[in-house]
Amino acid sequence: MRLLLLSNSINPGGAYLQHALAAVEKINRRRAIFIPYAGVTIGWDDYLNKVRQALAPIGIHVDGVHQSDDPVAAIQGAELILGGGGNTWRLLQLVRQHGLLEAIRAKVAVGTPYIGWSAGTNLACPTIRTTNDMPIVDPKGFDALNLLPFQINPHYNNELPAGHQGETRSQRIAEFTRINPDMPVLGLPEGDWLEVDGQQTVLCGPKPALLFKEGNEPREIHAGDLSFLMARQIEATPGTRGTE
Amino acid sequence: MRLLLLSNSINPGGAYLQHALAAVEKINRRRAIFIPYAGVTIGWDDYLNKVRQALAPIGIHVDGVHQSDDPVAAIQGAELILGGGGNTWRLLQLVRQHGLLEAIRAKVAVGTPYIGWSAGTNLACPTIRTTNDMPIVDPKGFDALNLLPFQINPHYNNELPAGHQGETRSQRIAEFTRINPDMPVLGLPEGDWLEVDGQQTVLCGPKPALLFKEGNEPREIHAGDLSFLMARQIEATPGTRGTE
Repeated sequence: MRLLLLSNSINPGGAYLQHALAAVEKINRRRAIFIPYAGVTIGWDDYLNKVRQALAPIGIHVDGVHQSDDPVAAIQGAELILGGGGNTWRLLQLVRQHGLLEAIRAKVAVGTPYIGWSAGTNLACPTIRTTNDMPIVDPKGFDALNLLPFQINPHYNNELPAGHQGETRSQRIAEFTRINPDMPVLGLPEGDWLEVDGQQTVLCGPKPALLFKEGNEPREIHAGDLSFLMARQIEATPGTRGTE
Repeated sequence: MRLLLLSNSINPGGAYLQHALAAVEKINRRRAIFIPYAGVTIGWDDYLNKVRQALAPIGIHVDGVHQSDDPVAAIQGAELILGGGGNTWRLLQLVRQHGLLEAIRAKVAVGTPYIGWSAGTNLACPTIRTTNDMPIVDPKGFDALNLLPFQINPHYNNELPAGHQGETRSQRIAEFTRINPDMPVLGLPEGDWLEVDGQQTVLCGPKPALLFKEGNEPREIHAGDLSFLMARQIEATPGTRGTE
């Protein structure tokens, strides 16, 4: 299994996906299928063009799954699958409606790389229950691609805007782990990403990530080998995850 | 119908529910049933005690719905219903599991006042699709109490923490209105609340609220009469709201 899971698409002062280009290049594919469904206030063709322009300098041609009359076949024929950012709820709703959850899982299982950022990273998790996004649609089930035995919280940041009395991100994740004590959550700061290649999983990027597990204080994880987390048994099967 | 819907429970430097005491007192009830289900990392008895202490100075005695063997009967016998803050997903999940959605709706329809803050305010809306909370559990449906013909986004604030590249709150709400063009959203800043009394709806508090509707720029609404929004026809019925 080959995955590249980014917290975010743009670093301050950077261009779209720029901070990830070297990692994308290492994956060494020439053609990709892009899933633009998380885009809500951007047209999918415009979104596709943005991703095309970002990946053209490293010689990757990108097609949009939305351009195909048969999205399942488009995924089945993919050399590389790209799950773009935006609204995670909308992404999961449409991926499910088009029958792509199983199609993507099956392709990734036989070695087709998956690259996700932001909402696309949430989609790779067991469920989307650690998204930051507003639930603008009901995806009819929270189960996602389940490519990892843990959850990622993208754009991890524990700061609150001045004067704000709501929960911090860490408090929100602590609520998740209280209700779902068997499921760790990796808070992935902006600028960071995970590279999964077979048995090896590596955390990359400038900032430490934060690992949340019920019964433990959140633990800082610095760039480097994360295979211990990936090797973890998935303790529940789809539909029985957590305490629900 | 009598509602008091608060954005938040604590203002900077204030005590729990302190900024709302005069508005609560106006409702003129002596006994209340409190719904603590949104509390995840606080025990429900502790949460009840916190609310008891907050409302004791204005002579309201509070019991917890969780203390009753028959929560539906507890709601049916209530003089005043309190929906507390915390995690909106957990609140809706447990309110639904205990059969309280219909029980609360029925009581409010015959004049029993409902007071909500934060998650409890989300619960009063047609759906919880404008919550800010992390979806730590699947509530098995997003439909909520549907006491209003519009959505409220509590803790409304458009600031981002320094360095954060994710969506602003206004961008998130714009995604909602794009997908759900018939449903306005009132961004309710901390410190503000709505008072609904029969045909009259009033926005109270120090900051302007922001009204989002697809096809229009967000509009600042200052403290005062909001009955135009409350009088709005509910254009869809439960199960057919939005475009899903």
